[in-house]
Amino acid sequence: MSERLTLQQTADLLLAQNDIGILMHRFPDGDTIGSAYALCRALRARGKRAKLLCCDPIPDKYSYLHPGEGADDFEPAWLCAVDVATPTLLGSLQEPYGHRIALCIDHHATNAEYADYLLLDDLAANAMNIARLIPLLGVEIDQQMAESLYTGIATDTGCFRFPNTTADTFRMAGDLVEYGVRSSMINRLMFETKSRALIELEREALDGIEFAFHDRVAVVTITRDMIESTGAGDDEIEGLIPLSRQIEGVWVGLTLRQKPSGNYKVSVRTGTEADASAICAVLGGGGHMRAAGCDPEGNREEVLHQLLTAIAEIVPEISY
Amino acid sequence: MSERLTLQQTADLLLAQNDIGILMHRFPDGDTIGSAYALCRALRARGKRAKLLCCDPIPDKYSYLHPGEGADDFEPAWLCAVDVATPTLLGSLQEPYGHRIALCIDHHATNAEYADYLLLDDLAANAMNIARLIPLLGVEIDQQMAESLYTGIATDTGCFRFPNTTADTFRMAGDLVEYGVRSSMINRLMFETKSRALIELEREALDGIEFAFHDRVAVVTITRDMIESTGAGDDEIEGLIPLSRQIEGVWVGLTLRQKPSGNYKVSVRTGTEADASAICAVLGGGGHMRAAGCDPEGNREEVLHQLLTAIAEIVPEISY
Repeated sequence: MSERLTLQQTADLLLAQNDIGILMHRFPDGDTIGSAYALCRALRARGKRAKLLCCDPIPDKYSYLHPGEGADDFEPAWLCAVDVATPTLLGSLQEPYGHRIALCIDHHATNAEYADYLLLDDLAANAMNIARLIPLLGVEIDQQMAESLYTGIATDTGCFRFPNTTADTFRMAGDLVEYGVRSSMINRLMFETKSRALIELEREALDGIEFAFHDRVAVVTITRDMIESTGAGDDEIEGLIPLSRQIEGVWVGLTLRQKPSGNYKVSVRTGTEADASAICAVLGGGGHMRAAGCDPEGNREEVLHQLLTAIAEIVPEISY
Repeated sequence: MSERLTLQQTADLLLAQNDIGILMHRFPDGDTIGSAYALCRALRARGKRAKLLCCDPIPDKYSYLHPGEGADDFEPAWLCAVDVATPTLLGSLQEPYGHRIALCIDHHATNAEYADYLLLDDLAANAMNIARLIPLLGVEIDQQMAESLYTGIATDTGCFRFPNTTADTFRMAGDLVEYGVRSSMINRLMFETKSRALIELEREALDGIEFAFHDRVAVVTITRDMIESTGAGDDEIEGLIPLSRQIEGVWVGLTLRQKPSGNYKVSVRTGTEADASAICAVLGGGGHMRAAGCDPEGNREEVLHQLLTAIAEIVPEISY
């Protein structure tokens, strides 16, 4: 169990450290990147040595974000994880760092409490926690921090479309935009740009879409063949994940994406009718009510069978 | 030319009237509907007789909006148009009403000033003008009005993605959400629900996509055959319009949608590189910088030729 901290206690704790490593989760998304970059920039503005740590490369589309100037050729003495619900999400960085994380700043109610200290507030995006924290570090939010924070909020709310969006989310976005956030450029990059490869992948995915449980479950499969023949990148494929749930009448959208190992990474998206994290928990995964994931073993038929069995168990009314 | 009014003058003018007809534009969208429904509800709350007028039916997906209880079996004595930039946009209602519109409340900088009085503020959505007006009518915004206004804002900003979204847009959305707006339900209906028919149409549209000017122009054609074979409704087809501009590297996205007459209704969407309204103006249409339309005569090849000629004229650097 972690010791829970308030925002002020978290700020005080951070201000007492130096040589800080900021850990992001694997397959980094806009919220873990935005949280980490903004925090790094704020700590550097306070004269701290701080560096970013992630087991996977940061996708090119985030290249407009700037964590501030500063050395990163040092071994971190003190570790803070942002938007990382469990140590397994650190991927290859779990081994060197997972056992000695001092602070975790997170918004997942399912946080595994692996860090010594925990700032947890179940806001729409973890970047909102960071946005509240930065002024308490004695740092004024600048345009670059605001763009990182806005990116976290926009991506974790599906650009203000998901049910996690509240009045506070909108107001914080408004406040951040006031700092000069280039929101239309960011939105275009994050949400409105599809590569020719992705357009082609989308067409193939639509060709192969399957349905189950009276069309209340839609299944999109993305094979290695499809990825390789279209040339779509891993982060582009993320853009396909909402598709399965967007079809009228669908309660549960499943996206099965084949990994280079041959196994499938499964993304589950639900409406109000089903709990995605409960479905994924049956297969050893987790996440949020409306968006969760798991990495089951097995070929496509085995994985699909496990998923449909879990869905029937968690949402029995789906088969009526 | 219209006499320009302030918000307070507009409120005073409305409060002096009765038997008010509220006109929406043809092919009604979320902003004209949201503006009209919220204003109608507010006027009815003040004890006025008010009714909604539109030449086209209101699409089913807006059935969660409520203009308030009240008689509408009366002939309007006084007319107010909302989100209607020119009288031609009244469609078949231009003939009976277009010449005697007392008030226009609009956010299009290109407003043709056809009404006696005009409240014009170039906000992201006309619903924002109505949201500012309602309190001046002495009416408290209720949940139903807030949902109409939110719908207008969300739809005219592409759910806060378009460049017209500002800090004020976010803050007003936050304020409206506070009134109990079911924003996730609305967002799902407006932005995230695709019928099986639309999914099929999307697939066919992707199959037939064409490019011009070094792939900087993308052309999506939707023929009557495609509409009829998939069973997609007119308002579903609207959902396809952003597609052409979302492709990486595309400056101008064109969607040519065949009308029952055989002619094409053209939607033009642009990024920062080109002015959609200037392109459409060449073909007798109009709209906004980033989203505009026109209804040229001719078969597909003729229309496409006119469009590409207009694009080369307005954005000469596109062919370099």
